[in-house]
Amino acid sequence: MEFEVTILGSNSAIPAHSRNQTSQLVQIGGSLLLLDCGEGTQIQLRKFKLKFSKIDFIFISHLHGDHYYGLMGLISSFHLVKRERLLTIFGPQGLDEIITVQLKHSKSNLGFPLRFISTQIKSEELILEEKNFRVHTFPLKHRVPCTGFLIEEKQGLKNLVKEKLQQNNLSIDAINTLRSGKDYLDADGKVIFAVSEFTHEHKPVRKYAYCSDTIYDLGLPRIIKEVNLLYHESTFDDLEEERAGSTFHSTARQAAKIAKSAGAKKLLLGHYSSRYKDLSILLEQAKEEFNESYLSEEGMTYPILYP
Amino acid sequence: MEFEVTILGSNSAIPAHSRNQTSQLVQIGGSLLLLDCGEGTQIQLRKFKLKFSKIDFIFISHLHGDHYYGLMGLISSFHLVKRERLLTIFGPQGLDEIITVQLKHSKSNLGFPLRFISTQIKSEELILEEKNFRVHTFPLKHRVPCTGFLIEEKQGLKNLVKEKLQQNNLSIDAINTLRSGKDYLDADGKVIFAVSEFTHEHKPVRKYAYCSDTIYDLGLPRIIKEVNLLYHESTFDDLEEERAGSTFHSTARQAAKIAKSAGAKKLLLGHYSSRYKDLSILLEQAKEEFNESYLSEEGMTYPILYP
Repeated sequence: MEFEVTILGSNSAIPAHSRNQTSQLVQIGGSLLLLDCGEGTQIQLRKFKLKFSKIDFIFISHLHGDHYYGLMGLISSFHLVKRERLLTIFGPQGLDEIITVQLKHSKSNLGFPLRFISTQIKSEELILEEKNFRVHTFPLKHRVPCTGFLIEEKQGLKNLVKEKLQQNNLSIDAINTLRSGKDYLDADGKVIFAVSEFTHEHKPVRKYAYCSDTIYDLGLPRIIKEVNLLYHESTFDDLEEERAGSTFHSTARQAAKIAKSAGAKKLLLGHYSSRYKDLSILLEQAKEEFNESYLSEEGMTYPILYP
Repeated sequence: MEFEVTILGSNSAIPAHSRNQTSQLVQIGGSLLLLDCGEGTQIQLRKFKLKFSKIDFIFISHLHGDHYYGLMGLISSFHLVKRERLLTIFGPQGLDEIITVQLKHSKSNLGFPLRFISTQIKSEELILEEKNFRVHTFPLKHRVPCTGFLIEEKQGLKNLVKEKLQQNNLSIDAINTLRSGKDYLDADGKVIFAVSEFTHEHKPVRKYAYCSDTIYDLGLPRIIKEVNLLYHESTFDDLEEERAGSTFHSTARQAAKIAKSAGAKKLLLGHYSSRYKDLSILLEQAKEEFNESYLSEEGMTYPILYP
């Protein structure tokens, strides 16, 4: 199953050095999820030729403008291109008011249903369960209510061992039972075909964690344990560690420490301060802590890989 | 005095064909005025290397998103770059609520004073008078309350005739009186120096009219009579005349008819529908009615010229 993330914006606060504000498009098993939506996100989606009309879920981490000022433009464009399918937006309470006020003054009746689901910062929460994947929120420590998002694929059906299939005559019922991970039994409960013999081992499920804006938080590793890819904001370098703390942001090194402590397989850096035209210092400092650190770059797609 | 307009966005409704949504920067005698502020305006300002921290006045014609979704981003950026000077925003009632709601949820206390002045659509109105120029609003006929903006320079002091100055010994008082356009008199009211002899004729004052979104409106030429430059939306070509009417927009030909009827010196077309990748059809049809028609292009600066 495809599972990848494309970076649409990587800068913090202000667009600079041709870098836009935060937004990412996650593609997972035919679904498109948008994580945050800084100003100009719809322009970036067009620039990178992404078929964004199929975005059904938008997740807004918090109500700082660099994470959501592109949302109304995207909603308006969906309306103008005659979207009909449901759009679900997850975000902090207040976002619904922001959307409603603007629709009211433009006298817009959207041509598609829009559902708003508010997130909360008391605890982790399952907010979306689809056929192929689940999304949990988890609290991030920032200056305003803010959540991260953990996207994990669901265990699919097991694959059958080809040779076993050829040697035996399996009914549809037997096949479905085995693929669902259970032994196939006769009426007395005796095993006819053992799932351990007839199916391959499950591939492990992959996970992507998105930590948009957060102070260095040692509570995070428990929640994002062993994710295959971690995106963690890395606004500053070592010299600005104090500023990182006072503004509830992180340094690249701190992001790397979180990745290491969580046992993440790879780390994607982002939300760069405009003071860094050249980002190599951030990458260097992250790699000193965690070698599998990478700079997120706009227009690039990063697969969430099996270990 | 410099008086020119730079196009930041020229497309209608949706950004397309690398064209952004409506916004223009007017430079007049050291002041910067922003007319409308579609999504990504701050990105365009940076791209074209315009020193936009000196924008003191923003004019929003109406509350369709393609004319104002970039406003919050610009306000936030002003805050982040530690702006201190007053920012005045003119726009329809409701815009204040839209701004306030978003500042509330981001828990932002702006570091600079922001003044909001609401426009109305009952009649023409003088909304801004500065040393060098005035701005009037005038009602436009659109689907939501919408105003155009007429920017006119003010008559400056008259220039003295050099030769006359050399032949006569003029006091500071006499010079100031003559430059202000009055004869210089003695105590008995007799003319000592006649303004007609000692000063050159005033240059005529220049005017720029901005008609953002409007149906073809034959009431407009009276208001924008003899402007030196007219920007008039031209969303569609002849084939879409009916659609233009039903959506309260204009065709390029209709824009040109308005320009001709108003006695405008030049016409700038814009607010192009995304259906036109190539805009030449719009220009052709406009020029058939009014030869001094030009396509507005993003990043280009158009001077408002003396006749």
